[in-house]
Order: sequence, then C-alpha cells, then structure tokens
Amino acid sequence: ANSIFGALDTTIFETMSRMAAEAGAINLGQGFPEGLEPEEVVEAAIAALRSGPHQYPPMAGLPALRQAVAENARRFLGLDVDWEKEVLVTSGATEALADAFFGLLEPGDEVIVFEPAYDSYQPIIRRAGAVPVPVRIAPPDWGVPFERLEAAITPKTRAFILNTPWNPIGRILDDEELRFLADLMLKHDLVAICDEVYEHLVFDGRQHRTLFALPEVRDRVVRIGSAGKTFSVTGWKVGYITACEALLKPIMRAHQFVTFTTPPALQAAVAFGLNLPDAYFDGLRAELQGRRDLLVGGLRAAGFDVENVEATYFAIAATGEAKSDDVAFCRAMTFEAGVTAVPLSAFYGKGDMRSHIRFCFAKREETLRAAVERIVAWR
Amino acid sequence: ANSIFGALDTTIFETMSRMAAEAGAINLGQGFPEGLEPEEVVEAAIAALRSGPHQYPPMAGLPALRQAVAENARRFLGLDVDWEKEVLVTSGATEALADAFFGLLEPGDEVIVFEPAYDSYQPIIRRAGAVPVPVRIAPPDWGVPFERLEAAITPKTRAFILNTPWNPIGRILDDEELRFLADLMLKHDLVAICDEVYEHLVFDGRQHRTLFALPEVRDRVVRIGSAGKTFSVTGWKVGYITACEALLKPIMRAHQFVTFTTPPALQAAVAFGLNLPDAYFDGLRAELQGRRDLLVGGLRAAGFDVENVEATYFAIAATGEAKSDDVAFCRAMTFEAGVTAVPLSAFYGKGDMRSHIRFCFAKREETLRAAVERIVAWR
Ligand SMILES: CSCCC(=O)C(=O)O
Ligand SMILES: CSCCC(=O)C(=O)O
Repeated sequence: ANSIFGALDTTIFETMSRMAAEAGAINLGQGFPEGLEPEEVVEAAIAALRSGPHQYPPMAGLPALRQAVAENARRFLGLDVDWEKEVLVTSGATEALADAFFGLLEPGDEVIVFEPAYDSYQPIIRRAGAVPVPVRIAPPDWGVPFERLEAAITPKTRAFILNTPWNPIGRILDDEELRFLADLMLKHDLVAICDEVYEHLVFDGRQHRTLFALPEVRDRVVRIGSAGKTFSVTGWKVGYITACEALLKPIMRAHQFVTFTTPPALQAAVAFGLNLPDAYFDGLRAELQGRRDLLVGGLRAAGFDVENVEATYFAIAATGEAKSDDVAFCRAMTFEAGVTAVPLSAFYGKGDMRSHIRFCFAKREETLRAAVERIVAWR
Repeated sequence: ANSIFGALDTTIFETMSRMAAEAGAINLGQGFPEGLEPEEVVEAAIAALRSGPHQYPPMAGLPALRQAVAENARRFLGLDVDWEKEVLVTSGATEALADAFFGLLEPGDEVIVFEPAYDSYQPIIRRAGAVPVPVRIAPPDWGVPFERLEAAITPKTRAFILNTPWNPIGRILDDEELRFLADLMLKHDLVAICDEVYEHLVFDGRQHRTLFALPEVRDRVVRIGSAGKTFSVTGWKVGYITACEALLKPIMRAHQFVTFTTPPALQAAVAFGLNLPDAYFDGLRAELQGRRDLLVGGLRAAGFDVENVEATYFAIAATGEAKSDDVAFCRAMTFEAGVTAVPLSAFYGKGDMRSHIRFCFAKREETLRAAVERIVAWR
C-alpha cells in the first residue's frame, strides 16, 4: 500500500454518520441537505437522461454547462470569464481539488493549508508529492493570522488552499483578509486554490467575495464551485473549475487521467440550474437562513456558546470547559442525547483544537426542532 | 504546471474526434457505441433520479451495486467475491485506474506496461511517482513476449497493468499467457492491475479469462470493470474494482480523496443492469459480433490486412507498406475518404509502431456500411 494513503482511516464524516445510525441519533454531522433539491433541476436531469446522449461528452465538459458557470459568475460576482478557455467541469469539487493539486504541484512544493481544513486537502496534497504547511486559525476571531501566515512562507511555497465561505466556521473572508492574501501572492509568487463551494449559501444580505475578482491576482486563482452545494444534490458529483488558461491547461490534463469526464445528463441539468432566475438563489439562501436561525437559536437556548454563521450550512459550538474533549463530547451527545455532530479537531492536523463541535443545519425544520429538543433535555 | 502533466497534450481520441468533425468524416476513431444503450437500464436511472436520494451515497458505493458486481462475476466467471469487503464503485474505469495506482504505488516503484497501452496508463503511473516500464507487443502474433517480459523485471518492479480483452488489438489473453503471468507474480512478488472493461464483449463463443480466477494469485489482482462498456453508456462514468481487502483498502483511500463517490441514480441503474438475465449479455455480444463481421469483412474486401477480433469493439488493420506512417494515413483517410480511425502509434510510448490503425465497430450498421463504401471508393 502507498505509505500516505495506506496509513489513513475512513473520513470523519462517514465515521460519525455510522455512529449516528448505530445509535439511532439525529445526524447533524455529515454536511448534506434534506429536502432542498429543486424539482425543476431534477426534472432537467430526467429529461436529459431520456433524450440522451449517453456517451462521452467533451472532456472539458458540456459547452452549455461551461457557459452557465461563466454566466452565473458574471451575474452574482461580476466576474468576466471566457467559458471556452477558462472553465472545466469535474466529477465534483473533490475531483476539482485533486486535479488542481496534481496538475499544478511539483514534488517538494509547499502548500499553505489554513486549519480548520476540509479533510481531503492534506492527504491529496501529500499524494501529489507536495508538503502541506498548516496555518492555524483559532478563536476568538477565527481570522487569517497575518504574521503567522507570512512566517510560514518559504522559497518553496507555491500555493495556498483557501475555503471561503469557510467550512466549518461559517465565515466569509473579509476585504482586508483578501487584500492581504492578494499582496502575499504577488510578493511571493503564489497560486491560490479557492474552494468556494458554498459561494451561494451566504446570509443576512452578505455578498460572497473571491480572490478571482481582484484583477492583479486573477490569473493566479483557481476557483472551485459545486452543484452539490448550490443545488443540494451532493450525490451528483458535478463540480467546476474557473482559472486562466495557463493554470487550467495542466489541471485539464490531470482531469483527463483522473476521471476523463462527467455524466452529460447531470451536466445538462446543472447548466439549467445555474441559469435559473435570482429567485431560486434567493429562495435557497432564505430557506437556509431560517434553518440556521432555528438551530443556532436552539443551541444557544440550550446553553451552548455558538459562533455567528455568515455563510455555509455549518455552525460551530464550544463544548464548554467541563467537557473539553470534542471527540468524547460528540460520542456522548450521540449516545446520550441522540444527536450527532462532528468534532472540530478532525479539521486540524494535530488534532489540537478540541474545544468545539460542528453542526450541519441544512436539515428539515422538524429534524432541527427534534434535535434541539433532545439537546435541551440532555444539557 | 506540474512537469508530468504540463508537458502533455490532449488525448488522441479527442484529437481524432475533432479532426473527424472538422472533415465531416464518419468517426470510427474514439471508442464509444451507437444505438446500444439498453432502454430498461436508462429507465432504471430515470426511476432512481425521480425517487432520489440525491445525496452522498456510501463512499464505497451502493450496496446494491457492489452486490451486483460480485454476483455478475460469479455468474459469468465463477468468481467468489465478498461484496462488502472486496468491491469498490468508482466514477468510471479511468478513476479506478488512478485510484489503484495512487493507492498502491510508492515513488520509485516500477510498473510494467504492455504496449499497445491505453493512453492514460503511463501519465498516471508517472504522476503517482512510479516508473512505467514498457514491454512491447508486436505483430505477427501480438502475444505476451515471455523472455522480454521477464528481462524487464527488476527488484523495483511492483506491478504490471494488463488490459484483457485488449484494446486496441482485440485479443483475449490465453491460458498459457495467464499462467506465465501468475507464475511471474509469485516469483517476483507482483500485483496485477487488470483493466477488464471489455469482459462482456467477447465473440464466437469465447470466454473471458481473468487472473483473478487463479487461486494462487487472486489476492494479488485488482480487477477493473466498467458500466460504460457493458451497458454502452460511456458517459455515465460508473466503474468498479474487485480486489482482496488488503489491496482494496488503500485504493479506497485514494478514491475517498479523488472523487469520494459516484451518482447514486446511475449506480442503481447499473446494479439493475448487471442483474439482467443472460439474454441481455448474449444479445449485446451477438449484436457486436455482427457489427464486427460487417466492418472487418468490408475492410478486407477493400484490401486491408485486418487482424482477427476475439473481443472488444476494435479492429486493427495494417496500413500497408506504401503508406506506412499511421498518423499520416489516418489524416489522409479522414480528409480524403471521409472515415476516421486512430493511429496505433498512439498506444506506444515511443511511437515506434507506425504500421497499423484502429477502427471502432460499435457503430450502427448503416454507419459501418457507409464507412466501408467510402473506404472501398478511396482505395
Ligand atoms: C464528503 S462527506 C463530507 C461532507 C461535507 O462536505 C462536510 O460534512 O463537511
Ligand atoms: C476516453 S476516450 C477513449 C475511448 C476509448 O476507450 C478508446 O477509444 O479506446
């Protein structure tokens, strides 16, 4: 077995989902939505399956979807993207990340990984031959630590991976942070791999912001989006990358050898979805904002200290001093309260952030209400 | 850009498909079928999309599909497979290959690659940090060269990749070849990565044979199958790996970080397909055998020297001494005859086999008839 992958265990998300099933607990661990699939997008997939074709679409993706990705970015973020040269469709954002790392990194390159980090970043960076360099984000502000970040950069640093809106902490990076990162990219000749899968899940009238919008670094940014999050179909595995041609070309080679292409019927449906009127996107945000308020309010009423959630469908809560091991806390809450969350330490390489747990609030209102009731009874 | 991927160009199959489109030629280049999608399998996918779920299925694949993969292998090949521990669903056979290489290889390992080789093998082996070692298969017999193969093995050799039934040469490895390979695996402690995506496309009453069926090497074999080939839906991107638990575990970690999972509706439909009665598989073989006879007969009537095709949907023809550059020949045939094939040199690393071209005969009879007419007129 390969020494990087052979040593790893299954993902925390499946582990917690299995624990929830075993305990008969309400699963607010793994991040997937309940009851939010837009019917018209599902119908578009059915129509495309009925009509075919069923054979290999172009390796870079259906033109209709690549156009829709570019057009959606223009509509919501004011970006100017050449769909023919600057958009690639992938089999989900996970593949998009793998393609970006395999396509851009050389053995020995260093990649800054802000922690809390999604659990696929570090293994795949290592398997691409590069070295992940963690930079830790911590309470109380969970902000980018400018000095510690700059101190982590060496002549070998080639890129950083940035997740904004940020799973699990629910933050959108602000203008000052993006400005600092852009300056750093120019100063140290860095590429930014931007995991922006939660770009449409932003609340309270906030705007998603992306490094790709800053002209001086635009051609250093690999921007990743996901139909799974935008249309609440995490199983469809349709993702997309936007990047300038020079960055996209080697990423496309990686894609060619990693999956080659993505089911055309699902691509066609996602193209249809990205072209839906603003009402769809506004409705999704409003619905999720309501669910957020329900869960965050409930947890606070139960005595939890919960961070504000600007975006994503995750909320983090402090476990409190008395029960300060997040893994033990999640296990106890699963078996005693019947509600499952995810320990935040799973997002930190050294597992040294043991004070918080993450809840997913993309679930039906009755699910969230029942979960809150159980937690209140338990606390 | 990464130095392995950055240097590569687009696949020969897309290049030739584009050339065909430009010339208005009949495309017998890229390997995908026409008019063979089984309606009941497409309907099963539609039903699964209509009912949902649309969220992440289990990372290893739907139990129904993993069971169907094991059961199909029992029915057609007499294999005994534990679906829970020994089957993994992937987003196509291309991902299966990538997962196997990333999961099993260490930097510096050597992997024997028989040429002609599918064009993804060598780049992805290199990107996994390993070294592909080509062993050339050549006319007149296109057989495994026992002595040259053994001479290519070093203490660093860890695996070989074997495509049987063999694209592009249309051969099934015989018992003597498999026996020799099995002995070699035991003698040199090797793993076999077996790309068997054409397992069901075998003709004239022949049987597919697999190294996985030999008990003494069973636990050294990674067997890869593909719904794209078995159900003529190359765009669906549903593949599967069968391997003993010890080999499958690191491959599953690679899968976790490369795509994580595969669309559940397509998985459900493929499970339904694999469980179809023998009549479906017999019908597919009979239909393709008729198409093979039509194309091979036509090419021979046009004066081409065509190898016998035991399996797959490809036939190779010698270009003849007068026109011995296969690339130039394919270009000329595309623009002058209006028929596109693929140069065989694309399947050889050094491009030193320039005497043959490959036709795909999985096309409608009228397509094949028209192609043959054009070629006859041109010769
Ligand atoms: C791929 S399973 C994890 C789902 C997810 O994005 C999360 O829970 O953070
Ligand atoms: C992925 S495009 C190539 C299709 C194919 O399997 C072939 O033509 O050999």
